[in-house]
Amino acid sequence: MKKSALQKARAAYQPKLPIVLTGAVKAVEGNPTESVADQEAIRELFPTTYGLPELKFEKNTVPTAGKPINVGVILSGGQAPGGHNVICGLFDGIKKIHKESRLFGFVMGPGGLVDHKYMELTSSIIDEYRNTGGFDIIGSGRTKLETKEQFDKGLEILKELNISALVIIGGDDSNTNAAVLAEYYKGIAAPVQVIGCPKTIDGDLKNDLIETSFGFDTATKVYSEVIGNIQRDCNSAKKYWHFIKLMGRSASHIALECALQTQPNVCIISEEVEDKNMTLQDVVNQIADIVARRAAQGNNFGTVLIPEGLIEFIPAMKKLIAELNDLLAAKADEFANIAEKDQRQYIIDNLSKENAEVYESLPHGVARQLSLDRDPHGNVQVSLIETEKLLSEMVHKRLEQMRKEGAYNGKFSALHHFFGYEGRCADPSNFDADYCYALGFNAACLINAGVTGYMSSVRNLTKPSVQWVPGGIPITMMMNMERRHGSMKPVIQKALVRLDGAPFQKFASQRDDWAVNTSYVYPGPIQYFGPAEVCDQPTMTLRYEHIGK
Amino acid sequence: MKKSALQKARAAYQPKLPIVLTGAVKAVEGNPTESVADQEAIRELFPTTYGLPELKFEKNTVPTAGKPINVGVILSGGQAPGGHNVICGLFDGIKKIHKESRLFGFVMGPGGLVDHKYMELTSSIIDEYRNTGGFDIIGSGRTKLETKEQFDKGLEILKELNISALVIIGGDDSNTNAAVLAEYYKGIAAPVQVIGCPKTIDGDLKNDLIETSFGFDTATKVYSEVIGNIQRDCNSAKKYWHFIKLMGRSASHIALECALQTQPNVCIISEEVEDKNMTLQDVVNQIADIVARRAAQGNNFGTVLIPEGLIEFIPAMKKLIAELNDLLAAKADEFANIAEKDQRQYIIDNLSKENAEVYESLPHGVARQLSLDRDPHGNVQVSLIETEKLLSEMVHKRLEQMRKEGAYNGKFSALHHFFGYEGRCADPSNFDADYCYALGFNAACLINAGVTGYMSSVRNLTKPSVQWVPGGIPITMMMNMERRHGSMKPVIQKALVRLDGAPFQKFASQRDDWAVNTSYVYPGPIQYFGPAEVCDQPTMTLRYEHIGK
Repeated sequence: MKKSALQKARAAYQPKLPIVLTGAVKAVEGNPTESVADQEAIRELFPTTYGLPELKFEKNTVPTAGKPINVGVILSGGQAPGGHNVICGLFDGIKKIHKESRLFGFVMGPGGLVDHKYMELTSSIIDEYRNTGGFDIIGSGRTKLETKEQFDKGLEILKELNISALVIIGGDDSNTNAAVLAEYYKGIAAPVQVIGCPKTIDGDLKNDLIETSFGFDTATKVYSEVIGNIQRDCNSAKKYWHFIKLMGRSASHIALECALQTQPNVCIISEEVEDKNMTLQDVVNQIADIVARRAAQGNNFGTVLIPEGLIEFIPAMKKLIAELNDLLAAKADEFANIAEKDQRQYIIDNLSKENAEVYESLPHGVARQLSLDRDPHGNVQVSLIETEKLLSEMVHKRLEQMRKEGAYNGKFSALHHFFGYEGRCADPSNFDADYCYALGFNAACLINAGVTGYMSSVRNLTKPSVQWVPGGIPITMMMNMERRHGSMKPVIQKALVRLDGAPFQKFASQRDDWAVNTSYVYPGPIQYFGPAEVCDQPTMTLRYEHIGK
Repeated sequence: MKKSALQKARAAYQPKLPIVLTGAVKAVEGNPTESVADQEAIRELFPTTYGLPELKFEKNTVPTAGKPINVGVILSGGQAPGGHNVICGLFDGIKKIHKESRLFGFVMGPGGLVDHKYMELTSSIIDEYRNTGGFDIIGSGRTKLETKEQFDKGLEILKELNISALVIIGGDDSNTNAAVLAEYYKGIAAPVQVIGCPKTIDGDLKNDLIETSFGFDTATKVYSEVIGNIQRDCNSAKKYWHFIKLMGRSASHIALECALQTQPNVCIISEEVEDKNMTLQDVVNQIADIVARRAAQGNNFGTVLIPEGLIEFIPAMKKLIAELNDLLAAKADEFANIAEKDQRQYIIDNLSKENAEVYESLPHGVARQLSLDRDPHGNVQVSLIETEKLLSEMVHKRLEQMRKEGAYNGKFSALHHFFGYEGRCADPSNFDADYCYALGFNAACLINAGVTGYMSSVRNLTKPSVQWVPGGIPITMMMNMERRHGSMKPVIQKALVRLDGAPFQKFASQRDDWAVNTSYVYPGPIQYFGPAEVCDQPTMTLRYEHIGK
């Protein structure tokens, strides 16, 4: 593996552990916990792991001798910067407990556990991956651990390797599955602890005790770097509107954080669109109004940030997609025999009046996309819809209408961008490098404390990392019941953008100014070696959330 | 203007000048020069500025007292990182000559000169823009300075502001125009010197004496950062082929440099495609073969770099586009009346057999784009063609054919990216910050030396900046005659990728290995504060070109 100069220099970085974790620790129990909702149902589903206490680690003045443990680790779901450091922290943590402890990585995600595909992670491998981006050390995958068969199959290899604890690094779904797995193993008295770690660039796995998921910091900084560069270009050439879509399957945390960092002219927040029951045309009109206001001042340029999940938060689009899914599933054969040029009319004729109108209002290309690209379950692949082009096309149309009405007299030329894969595997920022290492090291402490069904929790994150507060929280306390594939399931509640939260409120209080005036901020690339105010700042989201705490 | 933490820290950076420029200098004349080709024609067109000697600055032991001068500066064409530092260096340079010297910026490009739109650049303005990206200090534009009327109109404001020298920061076309302007003013004995500075991220304005254009270093580093991140993602998820188009109107220097930095599985070099007289299908087959070879090893993922200008380097596509331009211009009215669904057949029926075949071989979407999106002159807008999607779609088709023949048995899922605007306005790397500052400071020295029609030249760029060699070269020596809009014009010869040059040769010697093995390198983001081996390295292109010099 040929290494870049930065990789070589960065390998020497020693993540700064919370001071508590630098010596012997003891776990201090808090009060028993309850799930965020549906307590009875969750308790029933998790008879042995429900209601456990929060844990906080404190310095232990009487160090106890540890025993060697074998630990397994899994990377689950989409990549996020810092995953390698979670594994490195975990490795160092179990080695500190006993130097003969061993770490096994299951390869290409949870499937590796089921299919018994694994590799031992020795110190020479670990050292190659310190402070690097990516999940390539063992790979990741999206297999869901849900069935008894999978759990039993996994247990075989865990027993074979004498593994007594499994660490699952993943998002809300993967941690939900970790809790189910923990409950199952505890229920059958299998001697395997299960610990989760909060990962996702989307930033939607958080609550009072998990202040942020790892990767959100680095990914939003990479996106903000390139958005800032585009904005500087925009403000130099003064002739384009840049429509920039940002990854984030559901919540708009990424778009909001990038907006706080870069101060674009427009940033759409899906949660607000849903809350206000806006139509697609409402969103378009809002953007077009800002374009027109800027044009009136002679500024025919600007930037628009669009969260990837937008479409599914627009109530009318949600209804249309639902009916389309049903219609095309029910009439799949009939539809397949219709000539391409007649398909549009066929769909319009077969939809309810309300949805047919929404369908007809869409640009032809997007309408076509809605009827063509379908996932293996026959559903529209919403993530493939080029929302950034859809919106700019509709804004263009709206502006021409406003021109006729005398409400607009500018030039509109749009460029499009989509950022996602550019940031998921970036080298972790100092924050994510430290946070991830601490999460992994802390997971080793949770294992040593003998608990299961817990998520590694490191708090107080706006303070310097030495002051961070390590501990663990029962995963069940983050759960509620939600309908999935037709039946009620216990799942970790997704943290959407709170419209009454400080980050959104801050944005909302400034956006009118940003819309008309050009107030761009240019964050530049992530720095690893410079002054602390450049290198060590957490996200604006985290900082605003902590104000007044 | 709200500044990011990095901007604040970076403002303090003091670019490192070549040692020669830190004290008094004298201009040492070399031999008279000749243009690279068409000497007679060029000499005739530039009677007073042809054949001037190269200049080199050396330390002057006897400093001479300077006089105050008023200088004008123009940013011309597309943005490139470091433009602000050229202006800062120029400002500091003329202030060093005499503290009462003044600098005027013409706003929004060459049009500002013609329309008399300008602003004085005082030290408080200059200090706001040191080491920043973008051209927003005075804006840029694409107005071409070509006519006597423009030159005369410009002279009015230059006289009014008592400006005796004009610095034009631009690419090959803008510097060509600078030379024409210099000749014109000298010919009419107008007391205005004209000096050019070599700008373009494309890297195609270079020769033995202009080792690189500014901005190429930073832009390729930004693109390599995100390509590296995508490759790490690619190698973690192991399920996508990423098709990545890179800006660069004509030459493939950007793609080549990024390939040398990141070692992708495939990188197309337009100049090679043309040299080998390859068809679009040849390019597709080449990529498909690599996809199949990797699939045979179980690797259904990879990266492909595509230069933006590719299409116009494919001889068959060039012919098709030329005929389409003629056809749709001649039959514009007839075509406009044809129903959308019949347009395709109409075009096929009206093209020559050879071009009709090429047209039919294209995916429908792209074929349609070729007949729809036209610039104000009625020409196909090649830059709007989504080559990255075109190629992946055709590769997919080819793979399905190979599957039937038993030559392929993999999965192919493609994602697409286009990087351009993300890098043109990035904060300049240390290299570009130093190089640009030196180019500007050096331009002040050329003005002080009393010359006109020269380009600022700073050489020896692979050495530390203190050892760089400042001087000037007559712009006419870079010229030849080329056909433009139907008649022969003197223009600076574009530097395409040389297939016998060291950078391409290095790439060609390694690409087979990179194709099949996964040899990705992850450069990470530009660093400004770290160790020199991370922060101060010039491009691989420059380094390879200098080996053995």
